[in-house]
Amino acid sequence: MKILILNGPNLNMLGMREKSLYGSFTYSELSEAIERKCLESGASSELFQSNHEGDLIERIHNIDYDAIVINAGALTHYSYSLRDALELFRGIKIEVHISNIFAREEFRSKSVISPVCSGTIAGLGLNGYLLAIEYAVSHLKSLTDREATE
Amino acid sequence: MKILILNGPNLNMLGMREKSLYGSFTYSELSEAIERKCLESGASSELFQSNHEGDLIERIHNIDYDAIVINAGALTHYSYSLRDALELFRGIKIEVHISNIFAREEFRSKSVISPVCSGTIAGLGLNGYLLAIEYAVSHLKSLTDREATE
Amino acid sequence: MKILILNGPNLNMLGMREKSLYGSFTYSELSEAIERKCLESGASSELFQSNHEGDLIERIHNIDYDAIVINAGALTHYSYSLRDALELFRGIKIEVHISNIFAREEFRSKSVISPVCSGTIAGLGLNGYLLAIEYAVSHLKSLTDREATE
Amino acid sequence: MKILILNGPNLNMLGMREKSLYGSFTYSELSEAIERKCLESGASSELFQSNHEGDLIERIHNIDYDAIVINAGALTHYSYSLRDALELFRGIKIEVHISNIFAREEFRSKSVISPVCSGTIAGLGLNGYLLAIEYAVSHLKSLTDREATE
Amino acid sequence: MKILILNGPNLNMLGMREKSLYGSFTYSELSEAIERKCLESGASSELFQSNHEGDLIERIHNIDYDAIVINAGALTHYSYSLRDALELFRGIKIEVHISNIFAREEFRSKSVISPVCSGTIAGLGLNGYLLAIEYAVSHLKSLTDREATE
Amino acid sequence: MKILILNGPNLNMLGMREKSLYGSFTYSELSEAIERKCLESGASSELFQSNHEGDLIERIHNIDYDAIVINAGALTHYSYSLRDALELFRGIKIEVHISNIFAREEFRSKSVISPVCSGTIAGLGLNGYLLAIEYAVSHLKSLTDREATE
Amino acid sequence: MKILILNGPNLNMLGMREKSLYGSFTYSELSEAIERKCLESGASSELFQSNHEGDLIERIHNIDYDAIVINAGALTHYSYSLRDALELFRGIKIEVHISNIFAREEFRSKSVISPVCSGTIAGLGLNGYLLAIEYAVSHLKSLTDREATE
Amino acid sequence: MKILILNGPNLNMLGMREKSLYGSFTYSELSEAIERKCLESGASSELFQSNHEGDLIERIHNIDYDAIVINAGALTHYSYSLRDALELFRGIKIEVHISNIFAREEFRSKSVISPVCSGTIAGLGLNGYLLAIEYAVSHLKSLTDREATE
Amino acid sequence: MKILILNGPNLNMLGMREKSLYGSFTYSELSEAIERKCLESGASSELFQSNHEGDLIERIHNIDYDAIVINAGALTHYSYSLRDALELFRGIKIEVHISNIFAREEFRSKSVISPVCSGTIAGLGLNGYLLAIEYAVSHLKSLTDREATE
Amino acid sequence: MKILILNGPNLNMLGMREKSLYGSFTYSELSEAIERKCLESGASSELFQSNHEGDLIERIHNIDYDAIVINAGALTHYSYSLRDALELFRGIKIEVHISNIFAREEFRSKSVISPVCSGTIAGLGLNGYLLAIEYAVSHLKSLTDREATE
Amino acid sequence: MKILILNGPNLNMLGMREKSLYGSFTYSELSEAIERKCLESGASSELFQSNHEGDLIERIHNIDYDAIVINAGALTHYSYSLRDALELFRGIKIEVHISNIFAREEFRSKSVISPVCSGTIAGLGLNGYLLAIEYAVSHLKSLTDREATE
Amino acid sequence: MKILILNGPNLNMLGMREKSLYGSFTYSELSEAIERKCLESGASSELFQSNHEGDLIERIHNIDYDAIVINAGALTHYSYSLRDALELFRGIKIEVHISNIFAREEFRSKSVISPVCSGTIAGLGLNGYLLAIEYAVSHLKSLTDREATE
Repeated sequence: MKILILNGPNLNMLGMREKSLYGSFTYSELSEAIERKCLESGASSELFQSNHEGDLIERIHNIDYDAIVINAGALTHYSYSLRDALELFRGIKIEVHISNIFAREEFRSKSVISPVCSGTIAGLGLNGYLLAIEYAVSHLKSLTDREATE
Repeated sequence: MKILILNGPNLNMLGMREKSLYGSFTYSELSEAIERKCLESGASSELFQSNHEGDLIERIHNIDYDAIVINAGALTHYSYSLRDALELFRGIKIEVHISNIFAREEFRSKSVISPVCSGTIAGLGLNGYLLAIEYAVSHLKSLTDREATE
Repeated sequence: MKILILNGPNLNMLGMREKSLYGSFTYSELSEAIERKCLESGASSELFQSNHEGDLIERIHNIDYDAIVINAGALTHYSYSLRDALELFRGIKIEVHISNIFAREEFRSKSVISPVCSGTIAGLGLNGYLLAIEYAVSHLKSLTDREATE
Repeated sequence: MKILILNGPNLNMLGMREKSLYGSFTYSELSEAIERKCLESGASSELFQSNHEGDLIERIHNIDYDAIVINAGALTHYSYSLRDALELFRGIKIEVHISNIFAREEFRSKSVISPVCSGTIAGLGLNGYLLAIEYAVSHLKSLTDREATE
Repeated sequence: MKILILNGPNLNMLGMREKSLYGSFTYSELSEAIERKCLESGASSELFQSNHEGDLIERIHNIDYDAIVINAGALTHYSYSLRDALELFRGIKIEVHISNIFAREEFRSKSVISPVCSGTIAGLGLNGYLLAIEYAVSHLKSLTDREATE
Repeated sequence: MKILILNGPNLNMLGMREKSLYGSFTYSELSEAIERKCLESGASSELFQSNHEGDLIERIHNIDYDAIVINAGALTHYSYSLRDALELFRGIKIEVHISNIFAREEFRSKSVISPVCSGTIAGLGLNGYLLAIEYAVSHLKSLTDREATE
Repeated sequence: MKILILNGPNLNMLGMREKSLYGSFTYSELSEAIERKCLESGASSELFQSNHEGDLIERIHNIDYDAIVINAGALTHYSYSLRDALELFRGIKIEVHISNIFAREEFRSKSVISPVCSGTIAGLGLNGYLLAIEYAVSHLKSLTDREATE
Repeated sequence: MKILILNGPNLNMLGMREKSLYGSFTYSELSEAIERKCLESGASSELFQSNHEGDLIERIHNIDYDAIVINAGALTHYSYSLRDALELFRGIKIEVHISNIFAREEFRSKSVISPVCSGTIAGLGLNGYLLAIEYAVSHLKSLTDREATE
Repeated sequence: MKILILNGPNLNMLGMREKSLYGSFTYSELSEAIERKCLESGASSELFQSNHEGDLIERIHNIDYDAIVINAGALTHYSYSLRDALELFRGIKIEVHISNIFAREEFRSKSVISPVCSGTIAGLGLNGYLLAIEYAVSHLKSLTDREATE
Repeated sequence: MKILILNGPNLNMLGMREKSLYGSFTYSELSEAIERKCLESGASSELFQSNHEGDLIERIHNIDYDAIVINAGALTHYSYSLRDALELFRGIKIEVHISNIFAREEFRSKSVISPVCSGTIAGLGLNGYLLAIEYAVSHLKSLTDREATE
Repeated sequence: MKILILNGPNLNMLGMREKSLYGSFTYSELSEAIERKCLESGASSELFQSNHEGDLIERIHNIDYDAIVINAGALTHYSYSLRDALELFRGIKIEVHISNIFAREEFRSKSVISPVCSGTIAGLGLNGYLLAIEYAVSHLKSLTDREATE
Repeated sequence: MKILILNGPNLNMLGMREKSLYGSFTYSELSEAIERKCLESGASSELFQSNHEGDLIERIHNIDYDAIVINAGALTHYSYSLRDALELFRGIKIEVHISNIFAREEFRSKSVISPVCSGTIAGLGLNGYLLAIEYAVSHLKSLTDREATE
C-alpha cells in the first residue's frame, strides 16, 4: 500500500507564513509527522513538494500509488491542468487544506480540483493530512478485505 | 469532554437515499459507529437529528459541549440562521458531508456555514464523522495539556 | 392508490390573500374540491398543510403514497431540504402553483424543487390541483395495467 | 368554443426524438389524442405545427379562438416575437411542455413566453396537452355560465 | 391598540453574541424595555421569539394586531415564506435590525422582507425597537384621529 | 432617393395592441403617413412588413436603397441574423421604436441591432418613423450636394 | 410654448472632441441651429449648458417649460439625481445623444434617465436636437388643439 | 449638542413629487418639524439642503457637529465621494429615507453610504427624521452621562 | 455516402461582406469548391442555403444523409430550435465558421449548436468546409470498413 | 512646461483621514512637496483641489497644460463625466492614488478614468505625485528633444 | 516549410485517459501520424509535448517556424501567458482539441488562446491535427505562390 | 540595500512585441537601464526573468532582499501561487506594467497580485521600473534613518 503526498506552491515555506492561518510547524516537521503516520498505518509514503505545476502533474502520472493526498496550494484555484492529471488517476484522491479556505478571501472558496477528488478536508491544520492518510489506509484495507473474501 | 453530533434534514433516511452517493449504511448504523468512536476516544457523545431548522439551532444554544460535529444536510446551502447559531458557539465546530458536495449540482458547492466552522470534511462517507471526532478529541486534549502545563 | 396532497407555508390563509392572484376560495374549499376529485377518480387522498418545513419533509418520508401533489408555497424558492426529501420519494411528484409564478416577482420564477419533480402545473388556480390528481391517477392506472398484462 | 393547439419547431418529429424525454408517441398520434379530447369536451379544435416562427405568429393573429394551447418547442427560450403575439391575444393561453424543462439543460429552464400565458404545464408528457384542453374548456364554460346568469 | 413584537432565530441569545455588534443587553432586558415603552405609549404589547420559521409565520397569521415590529434574525435574508406571511398582514409592519446589516457580510445587506414592510430601522441597537414602536403608535393615532374627525 | 421602411413581427397588428404603449393608429394608417411624408420630402418609399426574420433579411439584401428605416419588433432583442444583414448594407440605417423600450420590461432595453445602425429613435410614437425619414432625406441631400460641389 | 434645451458636462467643448463621433460643429453653432429651429417652429427656447449636475437639476426644477430636450453627457450613465429631477417634471422630455451611444464603450449603452423620458434620439448628430424640438412642438400643438376642441 | 440635518438633490421639491411615495408635506414644513423636534430635545440644529454633491461634502467637512442626519436623495446610490466625506466624520451618522427604498426600483435598494453610517431609517416618512434626531440626542446624552460619572 | 452542406442567414451574400473577415470568394464559388471536393472524395453532396430558420430545420429533418456540414451564420448564437433539429440527427455533424468567431464581438464566441455537433472548425475560411468534408468522408469510410470486416 | 495637479473630493482633508491608509501629511504639506518637485524639475505647476465634479472638469478644459496629474478621489469610481473631460485633453495624463486602491473595498478596485489616462500610480503615498511629475517632465523633455533634432 | 506541433499538459498520457472522449490512440501513435502527414505534405515537422507552461512558451519564442499547431490541454482555459507568447508569433497558428470542448464541463467551453489564433478545430479526434497541418501547408503554399508571381 | 527585479513570462521578448504597447527597447536594454538606476541610487540589484511560474516563486522565497519590483507578465491575471509567494515576503513590493493594462482587453484590468503589493505603476513604459526603484530606495532610506535616530 503506497500513498503519494503532494504539496504545491509555497508549502515549502510553512512556518514562515501567516501563523494564525497555517500554524507554526515547518514543512520538515509536517513531513516527519506524515511519514510517522504512514509507518504506523502500515503504508509506505512518498512525499513531494514543488512550486512547479508541471512537476506536480508528472508525479501524478506515475500511477504506481494506491492513493494521493494533495494540498495544491493556490494552484487549487485555477490549475485545470492539475485537475486533468488527477482525473486520470484511478485511485483514492483526497484534497487537503491546512486553513479553512472558506473563511478567507472569496477566490479561495472555489477549488477546481474538488470535483475530481474523492473528498476534501479543510481547516484542520497539520491533522488534515494525517486524517486523510488514515482514511486512505482504512478504505484501501476494506477494499482488499472485500476482494480477499470474494 | 463532550461532543454534540448534529444531523440535519433527511439524514434520518440514510440507507434509503441514493446509495452511490451516501453509501448503504442507515442512520442507526451511523449512530452506533459514532458512539463507539466517542467511547474509544474517551469522549461522551450526544447525537441529535432533526428535520427542523429551529430544533437544530436550539440544540446548539445549549453551549454545554466542547465540540460540535455537524452535517446540516441541505440547510448547508441557505440556512443563515444555523450559521448564526454556530457562530455563537465558541468551541470546535466541524462540518461534515457524506458525499463530495463539490462534485454534484452547482448549488451544493456553496456552504453558508463553512465560514464559521473550524474546518470541513466532505466526501469520505461515514468515516467523515469519525475523523471529525478524532480531530476534535485530539485537539481538545492538546488544549487541556497545554493549560495543565501552564 | 393513495395520493398525498401537500400545501406549504401560508396556504392555510387562502381566500385572505391577494384575490387577484390566488382566487377567492378558502383552504377548506380547496380541500373539499381535492377530496371530491380523488373520490371520483377512485383514489384515496391525504391532505396536509403546514407552515413548518420540517413537518412537510417528515410527511414525505412516510413513503406509503403512490403520488405526491405539492404546492410548497414560498419554500419553492429556497428549500433545498424539501427538494432532498422529494428526491428520496420514488413515486410520481407533481408541483402545483395556483398563480402564474413566472409572471410575478423575479424570485418566484425559480423553483428549486422542479428539477426533482415529474412535472409542474402553474397558473391554473384551484384546477391545477385537480388536473395534477387526474394525471397521477391515469398515469398510475396505466402503470398497473401494463404490469397486469405482463 | 374553439381551441387552437400550436406546436413549434421539431415537434413534427415526435417519436423520432429522445424517447426517454419525449415518449414514443408520434405527432399524428398526439394530434388524434388532442382531437378526441376536444370532441369529448364539446370544443372544436384547430391543430397547427410549424418550424417557422413567423407562421406561428400569424396563426395567433387570427384571433378567432377562445383559447390557445401552445408548445413552442425551443422558441420558448428566445422568441420574444412569439411572446408579443401571445400578449396580443386576449383569451386563455396555456403553455405546455412534454418533458420537464426544469430538469434538463440550464437554458431550458427559462421560458420567455410564460409571463404572458395564463399558466404552464410541464413534464406530464402527452397528457399535458389534454389537461390544458380540459382546463380551457371548463374555464370557458364557467365564464359563459356566469355571463348567462347575469 | 396592540403591537406584536417578533424576534427570530438566535435573538434569545442576546448578550451572549458578539457584543460589539449587538450590545450587551439580554433578551429579557430587551423585552422589559419594549414592554415599558408600549405601556408608556398606551399600547398593549405581545412579544414572541422563536427559532422556528413556521412559528413566526403562524403568529403573524393571527391578524389581531394593529402593527408588527419584526427582527427576523437571519431569516431576513432568505425566508420568502415569512415575506408572504407579512404581505398578508394589512397593518403597519416595521423591520428592525440591532446592528447595521449594511456594514457586515455581503449576504446581510439583502433583506427579502423589506419590500413588503412599511419601513426599516437598522443599526440603532435596542433603540431601534423603541423608535419603531413610537412610530407605530403615533401613526396609528393619527389614523384614528383622522377617522374620528371624518 | 429611395427609402426602405421595414416593420417586423406583430407590427401588422398595430391598433390592436396595448394602446397606452403603441397608440391607436393601425398599420395602414402608419403606412399612409409614411408614404405621405416620403412624397413630401421628394423620396420614393418602399414599405415592407413581415413576421418572418428571413423575409426581412432578404429584403435588406436588395441593396438598391439609399436608406433603411427599421422597426424590427421583438426581433430587436435577439436577431443577430438581422444585425448581420443590416451590417452588410452600407447606406443610412435608422432604428425606430414606437414605445419607449427603455421604460418597459428589462429584456426590451437591449437592442442587438443598435450597434450597426446609424442611430435610434424610440418612444416618439408614429412620429418616430417620420422624423427618421426626415433625417435620412436631409442627410442624403447634404451628401449629394457635397458631391455636386466637389 | 417654451422649450428648455439642456446640455450636460463637456458639451461646451463640442468641435474640440473626437470629430468622427461628434461632428465638427461647435457648441455655439449648435446653439444657433437650435434657436433658429425653435423660432421657425413658433416656440420660445431656453438653452443651458453646465458641467455641474446640481445646476442642471435646479434648472429642471423651474417647471415653467412645456418640454425639455436634454443631452446629459456622461451624467446619462450614473446620475440618478438628474433622473429624479426629470421624473418630477410632468411635460414632454426627450433625451438626445449626438453619437450612437449603443455602438461605443459598454458603459455608454446604459442610460439611467431613459426610463423617465418620453423618448430617445441617438446617433443623428446635431439633427437629433432639431428633430426632438420638431416632435415636441407638434406634440404640444396636437394636445392644445385637442383641448381647444373639447 | 449640535445636529446637522442634510438633504440632498431634489428634496427641496418635496410636496411637488409623487405624493404616494413622499407624502404631501413641503420642504419648509419638514424643516419646521425638524427644528421643533431639536428644540424640544434640547439640541441645536443646522439644516442644509443642496442639489450639489460638492456642497454637501464641504458641509460635512465642518466637523463641528455631534451628529449628522442625512437624506442624500439619489446620491445615495452612487456618490462614493459623499461616502468618503461621511467616513471622515467621527460622530453619529444616521441615514434617512422618506420612502421605503427597498420596495421601489432595483437601483434604489443599494446605498453606498449605509456601510459608513451608524444606522438607517427608511420608509417612515417625515417621522424618519424625527426618530433619527431622537436617537442621536438620547445616544449623545448617554455618552455624556457615562463620561460625567467616570 | 451523402453529405448535406447547410449555410444559414446572409451567407448568400459572401463576397459582399467584410472581406477581411470572410475573404473575397462568393457563395457560388464556395458552392463549386464544395461540390468539387465531394466529387473527388467520392461523396454525393447536397447544398442548401437559407435565410429562414424554419427551412434549415426542415432540411435537417430529411434524415437521408450520412453527414451534415453546417455554417449556421448568426443563428449559431441563439437558435435553440436549430440545435434541437441537429440533436435529432444521428449522423456526423460538423459546425463550420469562415471567420474566427472567438476573435470578434463577445456575442459571437458562444455557439448554442456546438454542444450537439461532433466538432467545430472555425477561422480557416473556405477551407473549413473542405476539411469538414474530408473528415466526414474519411470517418464514414472507416466506419463502413469496420462494419465490413466484422 | 506646465503641469496641472488636480485633487478631487475630500483630499483637502488629508491628515484628518485614516492615517494608516493616507499617511499623516496634510493637503498643504502635499502641495508644498509638489511645488518643490516641479521647481526642481524645471516645470511650472498649477495646483487645484475641488469637491465639485464640475469644477474639476472645467479646469481640465483649460487645455493650456502639457500634462495633468490627477487624484480624482472617489470620483475615480463613477465619474464618466470626468473621464470624458480627460479624454478631450491630448497631453500626458497620470492617475495617482495615495493608498493601494486594489487592497481595499471591492468598489475601489475599478477606476473609470484609467482607460483614458497614460498611466496609473497607486499605493506609493505622497511619493506617487512626485514620481508622476518626474515621469511627466522627463517624458515631455524627450519629446521636445526629439522634435528639436528633427 | 516548417511546422511546430505543440501538445500541452497531460497529452503524453493519451490512450490512458477517458477513451470515450480522447480515443484509444497513444501519444506516440499520434506523433507518428503527424510526422507522416507532414512528410506527405512536403513540410518538416517539430513535435513538442510538455506539462510545463514555461517550456511551451519558450518553444514558441523560437520563431523559426512557418506555422504552429497547438493543443494546449487544460492551459487553454487560463494561461494568458501562453496567449501572449502565441500573440508574439506572426505565422499561422491553429488551435486543436481532440474532444468537443463545447460539449463538456462549462469551464472547457472558454479558450483564452482562441482570440490570438488563426482558427480552431475541435472534436475531430486525431484527425484535427492532420487537418490543421493540411490547412497550414496549403495556406503557406498559396502565400508563396502569390509572392512568386508578384 | 538590495532590490530584486522580477520579470515574468514573455518579457524576454521585449522589442519583438507590439511596439505601440511595449515600446521598442529590448530586454537587455531594460536590464541595463535598471542596473544603472540602482547603481546611481546606491542599491545593489538582482535581475531575474523567467517564463516559469515556479522559478519566479522560488526566487521570491529567497527573502534576502529589501524590496521587490515585479512585472509578472500575464501571470498577473491568474497566478494566485505567485500572489501567495509575494504575500510571504515582508519587504516593499511594487508591481510594474509597461503598458496601461486598464486600457486593453478586459482580462488585463484585473491583477490578482495587486492586493498583496505595496503599490502599482502601470502605463509609464520602461520608466515604470525606474520610478519603482527610486521609490523603493527612498522609502528604505527613510525607514533606516528613522531607526538610526531612534
